[in-house]
Amino acid sequence: MSGAHPEPSAVSSGGSASNAGSRAAKAVAELKSRDRDIMLLTHTSAILGWDQETYLPAKGIDERSAQLALLHGLIHERTIAPENQSLLDAAGAPIGPGAAAGSSTDDAGAADGDPSLPPLDRAFLRRYRRRYERAVKLPQELVVTLAEKTSRAQAVWVEAREADDFPRFAPHLQGLLDLLLEVADRIGYDEHPYDALLDQYEPFMKTSSVDRIFTGLREQLVPIVAAIAEAPQVDASILERAFPVAAQERFGRTVMDALGYSRNRGRLDVSAHPFTTTLGFDDVRITTRYNERFFNSAIFGTMHEVGHGLYELGFADDLRGTLLAEGTSLGIHESQSRMWENMVGRSRPFWRHFYPILRSHFPDALLDVDAERFYRAVNRVAPSLIRVEADEVTYALHVILRFELEKELVSRTLSVKDLPEAWRAKSRELLGVEPSNDRDGVLQDIHWSMGGIGYFPTYALGNLYAAAFMQRINRDLPTLWNEIAEGNCSSLLSWLRTHIHRHGSARTAEELCIEITGAPLSAKPFVDYVWEKYRDIYGLD
Amino acid sequence: MSGAHPEPSAVSSGGSASNAGSRAAKAVAELKSRDRDIMLLTHTSAILGWDQETYLPAKGIDERSAQLALLHGLIHERTIAPENQSLLDAAGAPIGPGAAAGSSTDDAGAADGDPSLPPLDRAFLRRYRRRYERAVKLPQELVVTLAEKTSRAQAVWVEAREADDFPRFAPHLQGLLDLLLEVADRIGYDEHPYDALLDQYEPFMKTSSVDRIFTGLREQLVPIVAAIAEAPQVDASILERAFPVAAQERFGRTVMDALGYSRNRGRLDVSAHPFTTTLGFDDVRITTRYNERFFNSAIFGTMHEVGHGLYELGFADDLRGTLLAEGTSLGIHESQSRMWENMVGRSRPFWRHFYPILRSHFPDALLDVDAERFYRAVNRVAPSLIRVEADEVTYALHVILRFELEKELVSRTLSVKDLPEAWRAKSRELLGVEPSNDRDGVLQDIHWSMGGIGYFPTYALGNLYAAAFMQRINRDLPTLWNEIAEGNCSSLLSWLRTHIHRHGSARTAEELCIEITGAPLSAKPFVDYVWEKYRDIYGLD
Repeated sequence: MSGAHPEPSAVSSGGSASNAGSRAAKAVAELKSRDRDIMLLTHTSAILGWDQETYLPAKGIDERSAQLALLHGLIHERTIAPENQSLLDAAGAPIGPGAAAGSSTDDAGAADGDPSLPPLDRAFLRRYRRRYERAVKLPQELVVTLAEKTSRAQAVWVEAREADDFPRFAPHLQGLLDLLLEVADRIGYDEHPYDALLDQYEPFMKTSSVDRIFTGLREQLVPIVAAIAEAPQVDASILERAFPVAAQERFGRTVMDALGYSRNRGRLDVSAHPFTTTLGFDDVRITTRYNERFFNSAIFGTMHEVGHGLYELGFADDLRGTLLAEGTSLGIHESQSRMWENMVGRSRPFWRHFYPILRSHFPDALLDVDAERFYRAVNRVAPSLIRVEADEVTYALHVILRFELEKELVSRTLSVKDLPEAWRAKSRELLGVEPSNDRDGVLQDIHWSMGGIGYFPTYALGNLYAAAFMQRINRDLPTLWNEIAEGNCSSLLSWLRTHIHRHGSARTAEELCIEITGAPLSAKPFVDYVWEKYRDIYGLD
Repeated sequence: MSGAHPEPSAVSSGGSASNAGSRAAKAVAELKSRDRDIMLLTHTSAILGWDQETYLPAKGIDERSAQLALLHGLIHERTIAPENQSLLDAAGAPIGPGAAAGSSTDDAGAADGDPSLPPLDRAFLRRYRRRYERAVKLPQELVVTLAEKTSRAQAVWVEAREADDFPRFAPHLQGLLDLLLEVADRIGYDEHPYDALLDQYEPFMKTSSVDRIFTGLREQLVPIVAAIAEAPQVDASILERAFPVAAQERFGRTVMDALGYSRNRGRLDVSAHPFTTTLGFDDVRITTRYNERFFNSAIFGTMHEVGHGLYELGFADDLRGTLLAEGTSLGIHESQSRMWENMVGRSRPFWRHFYPILRSHFPDALLDVDAERFYRAVNRVAPSLIRVEADEVTYALHVILRFELEKELVSRTLSVKDLPEAWRAKSRELLGVEPSNDRDGVLQDIHWSMGGIGYFPTYALGNLYAAAFMQRINRDLPTLWNEIAEGNCSSLLSWLRTHIHRHGSARTAEELCIEITGAPLSAKPFVDYVWEKYRDIYGLD
């Protein structure tokens, strides 16, 4: 290469710039080739994971774990390959002096690659360098120990939950917490060790921002929940009638098609816990679970996963094969699933079209139920114990509960042994209800057993992003809800693809939010949405 | 290590032997660890392959090909790692002077590892070295190209077959053939380039041996087929009545269970072309396909794949995680599938037990059919077009057709474009029938699209091995057929596990055959079996 055939623009900026540009372009090409292998191995590991949750024969689990461990080793080896450092140097994106989690040094243009590179290459370098920087800070031994301990902790959590025996789980949680604090120390942080953990799921977001947003959210949600509690309660018992599974599946697939989830690039299967997983750029699969005696599980679970799936299927073709073809943060990911599940799936216009179809699938269960009664039933609000079954109003309170406890654990102001009592106290304080056992309390979620401290906030952030985006969508698409009332969701999908999906992780969550809403994230649009919707349903004023 | 703490027996054979033995044991341990990674990656690639044939969304194929290519590259890289050579030296199994395909140099005891090693380690070394020797002859680029081209060719074959459009497939086949001839040249051969291809599927077997066996087979089959053709034909029209798919699946699973195929270590799914694949030592899956208007497809296909699956599930536990946990040759593999499909599945005793059960699954279709009429129907012999639906008498002729065409393609005496016409001519010559389209002719099998030239002969060899083994089984288990007539197939499975399955590839096909039958493979036991069975059905003399 060495500067032969320089582009005119490069020539005008001088020979040495041209040399640097050509060298940078070559380094980017090499980094992309390495990234492609990492991506292929990551998707391969997703295939094994998907199969494990759907079709793996019972005795296959031991070797499957060994296969996954081998793949994760290959991925890690490539992620931390020392050649990355010199290639990043050559690309004009050298490793900074220990950029801390939540720090915005990544955004400093100077470090995002040679200025002659196209913007997408610079976005690529920003993400690639970030992954490399964080990975090299963690010694192999720490990564392996963490993997082993989480694997064991998960197994213990399953038993402890079943036996309602938190003390059995406690030492494992303590062990994981100690390791995660070591991870945080090694990754580094400016303000709070929780920053380093949160950043793994919601890159560039600081704990102090979440604090500020959640404080506002909590203050405004409390009076709404209180007002709903005083209003006459909605009857949702119709959702617990008999809904034959085969008909649920047929109806779910009808909705899946209507939302624009392509069967040529996706699949719907059954698993114990619903999830979305990307097995290839053109192969994004979702799962659901059926409960014959509770209608909500499958249909809203399916719409939720379809939302995740549409995001993963919407990346622009020029991101193909790179780490930019990923959701930019879990909060943005969750904004997509929650938008389809709640803002569309629990709306009147949606059921104006789909309720007659639904009724034809369940003539027995829904014979005496009109569309309005059904709409109110699926929007029933009531404080409850289990996060995954919570309504969209109280859901955020479940998340705030976990976020506040996690911060205290990470600050060492709460000890693991006191966690069950702290959980009950917080639950009373935030939701007004209290679990009678730890199984429905502190042991209910798998996340901590997987080392996922810092993950929960992204669920509530997703609701807030969704509401913020929807204000703009309603301005951009004035006929949207009339179209949805006719079963046509294509304008919404189109809008999301253009403004969110296609960018993958080439834009950060904050960049997207400012670009779309004109401001950083706040709780207000969500609170406004909730107030308007539930004022109507519960006759508040 | 270096000779410290020698075992008494090692001491008695002298210090230097002890040193060599300890060094050899250490080298074997290191080779096994390397082999384990190769095995894990091979099974991972099988998971991707299984998914591709069963559940992959249509558009996922491109990236899937890339994922498989990457995995095959990683496997190849490890297979040819230069460290293997010094480790094999240290283990006392040095690489010989360019062993050609079909050559028996591998069997020279002196080269199979240090004499102090346990027999299983020496069997391990024999296989490991063989794989290494062959692999180092193939450059990485050739391997990767072949993997990519076969993945794509398979997809094209599916379309071409559906559209009855051989010209669409032809350039892909030509590309694969060119690559395979390069493979043959690089692997080397003593007599015929076909040896090098055949050897990949039937190790140690030469083309000239197949020629000799097939010539005898063809000569003896022809008068039998002719005699049957002159006898009054069996009425098999009852098999084309309506057999609802759901009931076929239920009945198929009943049989699967009765044959001893464990659902904890296996699965049954649906694919265009039935197959068995090993995704883990405890995860061996089979597929079948259902045809509502032709009973034979699913049930005999399922029993066939169960036979393969039982072999893969029967390897002794001390072969776990090594390349000895593989079928020793495809001919032996096919002997297992054909034994269950034909010798058991098309026997009177088997249906004595299962026919009443079958009838309860299909009361409409089988109302007026008694067990004897059914038995005769599933054993109807008639020259036909489709190999996988052929009866067990004419089946070998389908294989001989392919073997002869493959030899001509490989010798470049037949060009790809002339293949459809050559197929029709051979079909007339061997079977007396001719396909009216390529879909039922040259496009009917998936094998060539997978680069599987040299594969077909193993199908007929399987029939011959099965008949040879069954002569011995009938002597060893005099009450076997009475047990099967009561629905109990466990003695047969036990016998097969003891004499065949548990050895994996620690014994060669020829070793097994001589051990079990006292002689190398010949066509005679099969011809005797066919003659005895069909003389009865067709009233020949």
